[in-house]
Amino acid sequence: MSTLFGFGIGIASLNKQDQMLDTLFPAPLAHVSTDQSAQLLAALKAAKIDYNGGNAAIRINVQECRALAQALAEQPDQAAIAKHLSDTERQPVVVVLATDSEPASVAEAYLKLQLLSHRLIKPHQQNLGGIFACLPNVAWTSEGPIDTDELAERQLQARCEGRWIDVKSVDKFPQMTDYVVPSGVRIAATSRVRLGAYIGAGTTIMHEGFVNFNAGTAGTSMIEGRISAGVFVDEGSDLGGGSSTMGTLSGGGAVVISVGKNCLIGANAGIGIGLGDRCIVEAGLYVTAGTKVALLDDKGELVSHTKARDLSGKSDLLFRRNSQTGAVECKTHQSKVELNEALHANN
Amino acid sequence: MSTLFGFGIGIASLNKQDQMLDTLFPAPLAHVSTDQSAQLLAALKAAKIDYNGGNAAIRINVQECRALAQALAEQPDQAAIAKHLSDTERQPVVVVLATDSEPASVAEAYLKLQLLSHRLIKPHQQNLGGIFACLPNVAWTSEGPIDTDELAERQLQARCEGRWIDVKSVDKFPQMTDYVVPSGVRIAATSRVRLGAYIGAGTTIMHEGFVNFNAGTAGTSMIEGRISAGVFVDEGSDLGGGSSTMGTLSGGGAVVISVGKNCLIGANAGIGIGLGDRCIVEAGLYVTAGTKVALLDDKGELVSHTKARDLSGKSDLLFRRNSQTGAVECKTHQSKVELNEALHANN
Amino acid sequence: MSTLFGFGIGIASLNKQDQMLDTLFPAPLAHVSTDQSAQLLAALKAAKIDYNGGNAAIRINVQECRALAQALAEQPDQAAIAKHLSDTERQPVVVVLATDSEPASVAEAYLKLQLLSHRLIKPHQQNLGGIFACLPNVAWTSEGPIDTDELAERQLQARCEGRWIDVKSVDKFPQMTDYVVPSGVRIAATSRVRLGAYIGAGTTIMHEGFVNFNAGTAGTSMIEGRISAGVFVDEGSDLGGGSSTMGTLSGGGAVVISVGKNCLIGANAGIGIGLGDRCIVEAGLYVTAGTKVALLDDKGELVSHTKARDLSGKSDLLFRRNSQTGAVECKTHQSKVELNEALHANN
Repeated sequence: MSTLFGFGIGIASLNKQDQMLDTLFPAPLAHVSTDQSAQLLAALKAAKIDYNGGNAAIRINVQECRALAQALAEQPDQAAIAKHLSDTERQPVVVVLATDSEPASVAEAYLKLQLLSHRLIKPHQQNLGGIFACLPNVAWTSEGPIDTDELAERQLQARCEGRWIDVKSVDKFPQMTDYVVPSGVRIAATSRVRLGAYIGAGTTIMHEGFVNFNAGTAGTSMIEGRISAGVFVDEGSDLGGGSSTMGTLSGGGAVVISVGKNCLIGANAGIGIGLGDRCIVEAGLYVTAGTKVALLDDKGELVSHTKARDLSGKSDLLFRRNSQTGAVECKTHQSKVELNEALHANN
Repeated sequence: MSTLFGFGIGIASLNKQDQMLDTLFPAPLAHVSTDQSAQLLAALKAAKIDYNGGNAAIRINVQECRALAQALAEQPDQAAIAKHLSDTERQPVVVVLATDSEPASVAEAYLKLQLLSHRLIKPHQQNLGGIFACLPNVAWTSEGPIDTDELAERQLQARCEGRWIDVKSVDKFPQMTDYVVPSGVRIAATSRVRLGAYIGAGTTIMHEGFVNFNAGTAGTSMIEGRISAGVFVDEGSDLGGGSSTMGTLSGGGAVVISVGKNCLIGANAGIGIGLGDRCIVEAGLYVTAGTKVALLDDKGELVSHTKARDLSGKSDLLFRRNSQTGAVECKTHQSKVELNEALHANN
Repeated sequence: MSTLFGFGIGIASLNKQDQMLDTLFPAPLAHVSTDQSAQLLAALKAAKIDYNGGNAAIRINVQECRALAQALAEQPDQAAIAKHLSDTERQPVVVVLATDSEPASVAEAYLKLQLLSHRLIKPHQQNLGGIFACLPNVAWTSEGPIDTDELAERQLQARCEGRWIDVKSVDKFPQMTDYVVPSGVRIAATSRVRLGAYIGAGTTIMHEGFVNFNAGTAGTSMIEGRISAGVFVDEGSDLGGGSSTMGTLSGGGAVVISVGKNCLIGANAGIGIGLGDRCIVEAGLYVTAGTKVALLDDKGELVSHTKARDLSGKSDLLFRRNSQTGAVECKTHQSKVELNEALHANN
């Protein structure tokens, strides 16, 4: 029997041309076990839903939805959703991802983003190639997603009727919390966390924090800075207010930035390199890959000058700008000998 | 025949004292052609709307609105709006701007702001003098604009009735997207773009981006930083996350900051001077007008020290802070001779 | 007779387990006079509300609410609220704070936060110990506060019914403006000002501004930066765009940061020390307590090198980074002799 990469029963919003704007999957599944995959596929068949293998996003009607709810007796969570959707005038959808290939439709893209935000898949652990092309640019409003071409008319009509349509975002990605609020998190300003963010339990994202899609935190973190697309912050690390992370190693192409455990990036600081564990970047200092750094040993003695790029991913580093000389320095807990060896080894 | 500077049929919100809080103009007009001006003025007359020349904001009733819709047969877009507004219990308004003088009422100020956001007038191309005095401070809520003096009572009443009034802003300027979403843009956090912003087609404003009124972008841009009042960013230029622009040349009075084509202002960087084309400001560096800069030629040789003010608006400059000496440097593609000539010419 | 520390008649939101999520107090009282305290307590008795002294948050029913409205004849503001709440299906609450001890319940914590935002108590002038433990983590939505455990079901239900629940925040603290908008302020992005902020009349908080609880401004201020928990900014001081304040003296434990009168913290700058009056921190410079500063006298002559910590709270200082040498400098209006004396006196 096959093992499904992903599965979800969802509810979609459509524009007036019947095109899909988004899909909510209340309980998506990833890396579905062989047994569960078999049960799900059998239920689709029993409900006479037109699935013919491979990856597919299938719009179903109310009758199919009811039949699916019955057929899913062995999967009570999924059955409950199907039951809920039997009662809607929106568009119920079933998405089956047999394999982890590029998303090919709105609903598939939304499923993959929700796998991340439900913490079922970590950043970089699935194929999101071409996702921008799958996602329509949507006006996210107090009345739900609206096609940007239909917005002006809707806004005028609402005004005339004494209502008000609040447009909170015009973007390809909606905010995560309109789809899922994972357990154990606080997110002070939800508009700044995109669907597709992976927010670890124990994370607090303050008002100045931001998390892009395919990015996030592993666990306990205080995030008051910006986590760019692709960046992952490990357990126990904090991003100070207004701090910045570059999405990929600046000037270094496709190397993705990550932050190790128990790091601190100070307020208004920034990194264009990755950090290992227990690193500190002083408030206000921006370290790019090309920054020339004076490397100091555990006694504060100069070991050598090096590009920050060569220190990317190493642990126990303190980056600061010497406030008397203006030089960017990197202080370590290691002796001069250890440092020289580390630098001359391949990075 | 006269040519109108501006024209709009709109729908206004009023407070309990019948004072205007805002006005939406679904299809405002600027620099109206002689023919169209004549047709509009004739329609006002035919509908017996009390317009006596000059600049005026005229409240009209439902009957006048219907008459106007009929009289505007030659202007179908305007007729459609008048028809829409015949059916509202809000306040229909007609604004005629014979000339570009200072806005003299709420409705006139709102028309001028919407001319900017509809991309009919570029920043600095109309008279906005005294606009702050025209604009009331309003609570922008999920139930529309509410007079700040009426807010507490409304909020308590809503709570008692099991509803919730969300106050998203208390400001003289509303967010642009509640009035117009121009074509070809993405605005991730609409609360950060004020009405009166001019957002060029092809611009993406990320969550950390901000655009004030009478400011904006000409075309394709990725904006993750702050565009202050009056600042205009030309085609192809990007503002990095958390980057800052000063509204006027710092310490230099009324000289407005602009950014040329294909520039990059790095994350957490900032400018207090204007930039020409193809300039780069390194991440984390704030260049104010008074910053002393070591000017380097195409070989990296020091040409001279100069105030950044003297480099304002010049092209092909790279600003950075030397990470070994702490000195702010400006590197160009020009030879020493060319640079010396440029510096000694009047700026 | 006793004097009450605080008093409020409020309206609470409950979750499905009947637990309190928040409480709105439309007209809270602090440092209640002896006479008024006596009247309030007499009214509670007359309305047969079960108050037995000390600090208490008492849920009352509709009958008690009506009785209280009648018994409060001498307190028309409070009577009006009680009358309003007689008509709700939400939960009316009376909170009596006989003393300023740690808040012991949701309603008590909310009363204390509202005393701050109603400008009845300044930051640090009341006991907020243990307040985090009192406050539940709540999803703040377009339908009001929702228990995070109940959110997903509510969101799915709303979608099926064609509605949309917008989750604007998941946090222990709500935004201030859903409880009170104090007079004389503008707050461009209300999501960035927490309940418990104290915003002085004459303050404008721009889109990039932020104010935490138990923090704020005394009077006229332009706030485009972040006021951390505990920080208080005095009359006439401005925080530039993206500027940062640390909550407590960095590396200095419990000393709370404050900013004196007529200071300017430049864009993207930051402070980890307190400022006296008329201080300037240059755009882009972050001064932490440990920053070594070259102290210059009124002639620009070097007096000595000192840690910024030793300059905390002093007046008439200009902090800048020398753009030629990279050294952080502090320039004063004082002569060398005066400065030497000031430095050698106990700080």
